Amino acid sequence: MSHFTEIDNLAVNTLRLLSVDTVDAAQSGHPGAPLGMSPAAHVVWTKFLNLNPKNPDFCNRDRFVLSNGHAVAMLYSLLHLAGFNYKIEDLQQFRQLGSKTPGHPEFDLEGVEITTGPLGQGISNAVGMAIAQANLAATYNKPGFELSNNHTYVFLGDGCLQEGVASEAASLAGHLQLKNLIAIYDHNHITIDGSTDVSFTEDVLKRFEAYGWEVLTVENGDSDLDAIYNAIAQAKQSNKPTLIQNKTTIGYGSVNEGTHSVHGSPLKADDIAQLKTKFGFDPKKKFDVPQEVYDLYKTQLAQRGLESNKIWDQNFAQYKQKYPELGAEFQRRLNGELPANWDSTLPVYTPKDSAIATRKLSEMLLDSIHSTLPEVLGGSADLTPSNLTRWKEAKDFQPPSSGLGDYSGRYIRYGIREHAMGAILNGISAYGVGYKPYSGTFLNFVAYAAGAVRLSALSGHPIVWVATHDSIGVGEDGPTHQPIETLAHFRALPNLHVWRPADGNEVSAAYKVAIESKSTPSIIALTRQNLPQLEGTSIEKASKGGYVLQDVANPDLIFVATGSEVSLSVDAAKILASQNIKARVVSLPDWLSFDRQPEQYRKSVLPDGVPILSVEVLATNGWGKYAHQHIGMTTFGASGKAPLVFKHFGFTPEVVAEKAAKTVSFYKGKTIVSPLSSPF
Amino acid sequence: MSHFTEIDNLAVNTLRLLSVDTVDAAQSGHPGAPLGMSPAAHVVWTKFLNLNPKNPDFCNRDRFVLSNGHAVAMLYSLLHLAGFNYKIEDLQQFRQLGSKTPGHPEFDLEGVEITTGPLGQGISNAVGMAIAQANLAATYNKPGFELSNNHTYVFLGDGCLQEGVASEAASLAGHLQLKNLIAIYDHNHITIDGSTDVSFTEDVLKRFEAYGWEVLTVENGDSDLDAIYNAIAQAKQSNKPTLIQNKTTIGYGSVNEGTHSVHGSPLKADDIAQLKTKFGFDPKKKFDVPQEVYDLYKTQLAQRGLESNKIWDQNFAQYKQKYPELGAEFQRRLNGELPANWDSTLPVYTPKDSAIATRKLSEMLLDSIHSTLPEVLGGSADLTPSNLTRWKEAKDFQPPSSGLGDYSGRYIRYGIREHAMGAILNGISAYGVGYKPYSGTFLNFVAYAAGAVRLSALSGHPIVWVATHDSIGVGEDGPTHQPIETLAHFRALPNLHVWRPADGNEVSAAYKVAIESKSTPSIIALTRQNLPQLEGTSIEKASKGGYVLQDVANPDLIFVATGSEVSLSVDAAKILASQNIKARVVSLPDWLSFDRQPEQYRKSVLPDGVPILSVEVLATNGWGKYAHQHIGMTTFGASGKAPLVFKHFGFTPEVVAEKAAKTVSFYKGKTIVSPLSSPF
Repeated sequence: MSHFTEIDNLAVNTLRLLSVDTVDAAQSGHPGAPLGMSPAAHVVWTKFLNLNPKNPDFCNRDRFVLSNGHAVAMLYSLLHLAGFNYKIEDLQQFRQLGSKTPGHPEFDLEGVEITTGPLGQGISNAVGMAIAQANLAATYNKPGFELSNNHTYVFLGDGCLQEGVASEAASLAGHLQLKNLIAIYDHNHITIDGSTDVSFTEDVLKRFEAYGWEVLTVENGDSDLDAIYNAIAQAKQSNKPTLIQNKTTIGYGSVNEGTHSVHGSPLKADDIAQLKTKFGFDPKKKFDVPQEVYDLYKTQLAQRGLESNKIWDQNFAQYKQKYPELGAEFQRRLNGELPANWDSTLPVYTPKDSAIATRKLSEMLLDSIHSTLPEVLGGSADLTPSNLTRWKEAKDFQPPSSGLGDYSGRYIRYGIREHAMGAILNGISAYGVGYKPYSGTFLNFVAYAAGAVRLSALSGHPIVWVATHDSIGVGEDGPTHQPIETLAHFRALPNLHVWRPADGNEVSAAYKVAIESKSTPSIIALTRQNLPQLEGTSIEKASKGGYVLQDVANPDLIFVATGSEVSLSVDAAKILASQNIKARVVSLPDWLSFDRQPEQYRKSVLPDGVPILSVEVLATNGWGKYAHQHIGMTTFGASGKAPLVFKHFGFTPEVVAEKAAKTVSFYKGKTIVSPLSSPF
Repeated sequence: MSHFTEIDNLAVNTLRLLSVDTVDAAQSGHPGAPLGMSPAAHVVWTKFLNLNPKNPDFCNRDRFVLSNGHAVAMLYSLLHLAGFNYKIEDLQQFRQLGSKTPGHPEFDLEGVEITTGPLGQGISNAVGMAIAQANLAATYNKPGFELSNNHTYVFLGDGCLQEGVASEAASLAGHLQLKNLIAIYDHNHITIDGSTDVSFTEDVLKRFEAYGWEVLTVENGDSDLDAIYNAIAQAKQSNKPTLIQNKTTIGYGSVNEGTHSVHGSPLKADDIAQLKTKFGFDPKKKFDVPQEVYDLYKTQLAQRGLESNKIWDQNFAQYKQKYPELGAEFQRRLNGELPANWDSTLPVYTPKDSAIATRKLSEMLLDSIHSTLPEVLGGSADLTPSNLTRWKEAKDFQPPSSGLGDYSGRYIRYGIREHAMGAILNGISAYGVGYKPYSGTFLNFVAYAAGAVRLSALSGHPIVWVATHDSIGVGEDGPTHQPIETLAHFRALPNLHVWRPADGNEVSAAYKVAIESKSTPSIIALTRQNLPQLEGTSIEKASKGGYVLQDVANPDLIFVATGSEVSLSVDAAKILASQNIKARVVSLPDWLSFDRQPEQYRKSVLPDGVPILSVEVLATNGWGKYAHQHIGMTTFGASGKAPLVFKHFGFTPEVVAEKAAKTVSFYKGKTIVSPLSSPF
């Protein structure tokens, strides 16, 4: 017996036409994918998805990720039908400046789980959501109290499956046996270049089987709602993640169905007319939603979700009675709060403490804070013994059958998959319930994940990259492993903390700001080599992003530096002092935190009237914001012993002092405007 | 009957111990992989590899790529044994500053085909080399004249196989049926985090079968030379690319064999001693090479290669007689020359020509130049109808059986695989014979390939990215598709042209410099929207990277701008003129070309004494090199109609003129130092 009636078919076509009308109103967008995917979307939303439109943040809701984000007209249409705060007028404002219906799904919109559009990200984010769910369940569920059991549904297309980031994430998801992850692959055989025959002829199902996924096929995804239903029902029984290959026709119903011409441009007026007629709708009406369709979404989605939310709330109230400690912790996380005084566990150092590599200081910090913060999920893309991202007693996040850990483990072995790791971090963060994921690799290889880092910043996921081996200080591994452009790259992203701490107190400050951040991600660049604990640092000062580390009255010059070049600048200042040149030393470990300070404070650190010289063993691009002249790298690095490489490129106190003295002479008698001063 | 004798075993152990001694001398490096891979390396080099150590650039040589570049001590040892210009003294200088044996393989070293180390790149480069070979063969081979038939051998480890870039490249290689590509997968089950069981449990062979590869297994890669031989011989018969899973023991022979502790640190002295004893060597001797081993490499590699090169030369001499045109073209390419006057095919524009999007101007240029330059191999990561990278009559590079093109086609359908595309570009370029690959995607998605772009710049592969949709001018697709940080990122890389042309002449200049470049890659950022043809542009001027577009006597202000903001600045200058403020307009389409001009020229464009205001609708990071104040983007973009988005962010002539006027007032009476002036 079918699970569906004629009203379901009506609803599917309503969804299709809403999407078409939405794109038509904008005269911009993608009608093809919604026409093909609407049947599967309808089945998932009305038969399976546990969502409460009255409480979009219900923590045990199922997550729905549209990895092929260009099909967003369908998502807005679904959100409208389901009773989220999207009116027909909002659909009519699709892709207009300032509307709540932008051209791709954006994380801050109601009912949108994560920003998608750049292909391959959504499916990888979904892996992160499934990881978070598994960890939450393993941490808090108790007999009779399934606080967490939601599924993550992700729609993706041929495009997503070609991206390497998706391959990485899928391989890891298979390894982790994330059974609550269900991916529905809209296999329409079309990308912008035409048929997938031109470049994508691999056997996708076999590949996913190789990853350890369950694979299923729906032969007629254009109209066989029961087949879609059965596949999803079967997927929910599997103990693996599932990929359902749903064969559809792009632009189903259009006169150009099955071709790439329906992918990225609005349908023509007469095509829309014939489409509406074909589907039994009035070709003269736009944004036409029969009442039965609203009713169906009300009874089969909104009410189900409301009820489920209510039961969960009751269940959680009892849980808090029975497990007061865990319950309070869960509640605290739901409230978006950190434990009181959590930051008292941050290590503090004095200049008497020994010189230590900042990567090692990071490890010591993680050792110190991890037990206070159960929401912290660590990990690394291999390299654990090098980037020191694993606290001593960490348990691995692993499928229990592996014998290597379990889902309550808080250290994720990402494998050598930096890009997926970045996208998974975003997914874990987007899952909510206070999750604070961090992960590690060499700074130079964060660039592999640039696509995901950009989305962290754009969407405001407060995730953390522990990025070690932060300069030519890498030494013998040579220029392939020595970052040059990396900080310039990431500092140019809006809304991203890019820390390069100079010592232990600055490492603690970086983590403090990162962990307390609600909507800004962080990269913390750390050294391989030892650095001294400096006179003049403190967590409080460094948390401002920039501050006067060592001062003199009426300085002739200001050094502004980060990381390993702060102590270098201190040493250079000593040489200058012996030449009667007075230098202030400013440490500027995070530009963004500094930029967010009041102007008066910033100008007190970097005032008018004094030449400012930046010192950083990386590309100087961007330093013009804070300094008049720059000492940095203008070429790639070199393979050799680190101290010799530093010397080779002129990063010694003597050479820095010499350049500083020349800078002082150069500016003598000139009016000097601080780079912070701006006419507009 | 075995193909090997006891001398082969001696040679294998010599290779192992040379690698161990090399790492030991440096007290830094990776002994584990060489110990495991030496048998396979020995078999490939002595039985199969066609290399002429006396002519390392022999164009039909087999290519050997060490994708797991950390095993480079083995590569240097092989190059030494084979008679390349690597002495024992060079091995002893491993990883020392200025030596010819740096910590990872670098492209400019004799016998090193490509820079590797960042995992996943080498295997993807190898796909590019195999593409170049197939194209060269299809273009020039004639009956009786197989000018090109070389194989590309690539060694890779578990790490490379986890990287998404490798997945993308492998999928494409399978689609393209690149039969001359043979990948030898050193399956030792170990990465830095320990056993691959912690994160990498997929079925790799099944995955590669799904991609369309031949897959073979060698059960005992530690000592079964014949099995390795047979597998490679079988691979050479296949009509697909082949992956040979070669099961080995990392650190074979060490007391710590099979563990990650032998991966990245020198072996201890007593371990080396027992290893040498075990292999029948004198534990007191270092860098010990029995004469029989030198003799073996001489007869079984160097002489074979010399002979092969000689035969090829004779063959090519006859070819030039029989096919004078093709022969001359091949010879020209071997000489590294472009056709005489090739640049006369570059389009030239005047201000009377209509406004055209620079992406469209790029397409028109490709239409114009492609027939003159057979070495140009185009392509795109999908998006062809959007980034306009395909000239009208292009034939696709496809396996003939696909019916969609053949190997003489010069347009590659990369699929939605930006990172692999970048690595493949590097491989095509590294192959030599004058190949000039370009490819396209949206500027924002070049970031997916950041890892490969970095290696283009580091290694000096003069490849080209056609990067369209270069700003918020993307419009409705919104912030996920609108670059902000992208140019700041790529401009911070040494040795990378980053063009943002303002009109047709500047587009021609960008391509002229890119195609004539011998060792610098280029990114050409192009608009989606129309731009006017400007008064004051020319190919010659724009080729300098920066120039005075429109001038006035004694300017009060200098605008410096790129791309779409050049015409905006011209319009703003008109408004200022009506207020009696005189503004020069400088176009700065490529910073690197400008930086390479003599100081006198640069200072004539951006002199002391005048405030300079940059205008670019991207992050302002880096503009401090050229301007005192900046108009740019400080947030991500927005979804909306492009002109409205521009207006929303203040990119109108009126707002720019207003900020310019404030800048003039701000600097009145102050000494103004050009940012180009430096005290050191």
